[in-house]
Amino acid sequence: MESCVFCKIVKGEIPCYEVYQDERVLAFLDINPVSYGHTLIIPKRHGANIWEVAEEDLKAVISAAKKLAEVIRKAFNPSGIAFLQLNGRGVNQVVMHYHLHLIPRRDQDPPLPMVEWELRKGDPERLMALQKELKSAF
Amino acid sequence: MESCVFCKIVKGEIPCYEVYQDERVLAFLDINPVSYGHTLIIPKRHGANIWEVAEEDLKAVISAAKKLAEVIRKAFNPSGIAFLQLNGRGVNQVVMHYHLHLIPRRDQDPPLPMVEWELRKGDPERLMALQKELKSAF
Repeated sequence: MESCVFCKIVKGEIPCYEVYQDERVLAFLDINPVSYGHTLIIPKRHGANIWEVAEEDLKAVISAAKKLAEVIRKAFNPSGIAFLQLNGRGVNQVVMHYHLHLIPRRDQDPPLPMVEWELRKGDPERLMALQKELKSAF
Repeated sequence: MESCVFCKIVKGEIPCYEVYQDERVLAFLDINPVSYGHTLIIPKRHGANIWEVAEEDLKAVISAAKKLAEVIRKAFNPSGIAFLQLNGRGVNQVVMHYHLHLIPRRDQDPPLPMVEWELRKGDPERLMALQKELKSAF
């Protein structure tokens, strides 16, 4: 897509800190890292989000994510890795080309901002109604 | 795995608000929902995290995630969906059975806690050194 910054990275028109690529996927370091090792994994073919990206490309992204998780463990053995992937302006997606954040955390790093939230028990009746709604939408 | 709560859900020993399943995957509503529609997608076969789960099961989870994203759009058309998946105590993984959070947000809902962080430019020299380290670990 002409105006898409990640498509420009794929085409080599904008440089990146590439760490892995194959036929379908490119992985590169986030230039605004939340943590040491923060990497983005994208399909080379443009698609804005989970709705637009082909299933085969989504699978290639998760396969690359597993490879990268191995490599990162080997390189600096983090105490955890969070994966985050945002779809739509309503959840703060900024670059409208599907990207999976791989966010490692080492023991000495501060807690990640995206992994903590308040647990509040859901209302069973509401959950049951929603379950019914979703099952009937299949 | 005997003591694993998600394995017990898979075996039907603990009930859940199931919304989808196939041969490899089960999806059910989170009983402590962060938002309306908060769903967990898990491989039926036990594996704690991205390192332990087989690639085929990871692919089955992302295929189910795409299906569910379609269904949720059809059911209540959220303004976005965040996917989050935690690996390791260091990033607050609580249940040690791989699970992908699907967290929709409707326009009227409060902002999701896991989608905002402060952008801080990374140091180019450090990024370059890390790129080299990761590439050599492949």
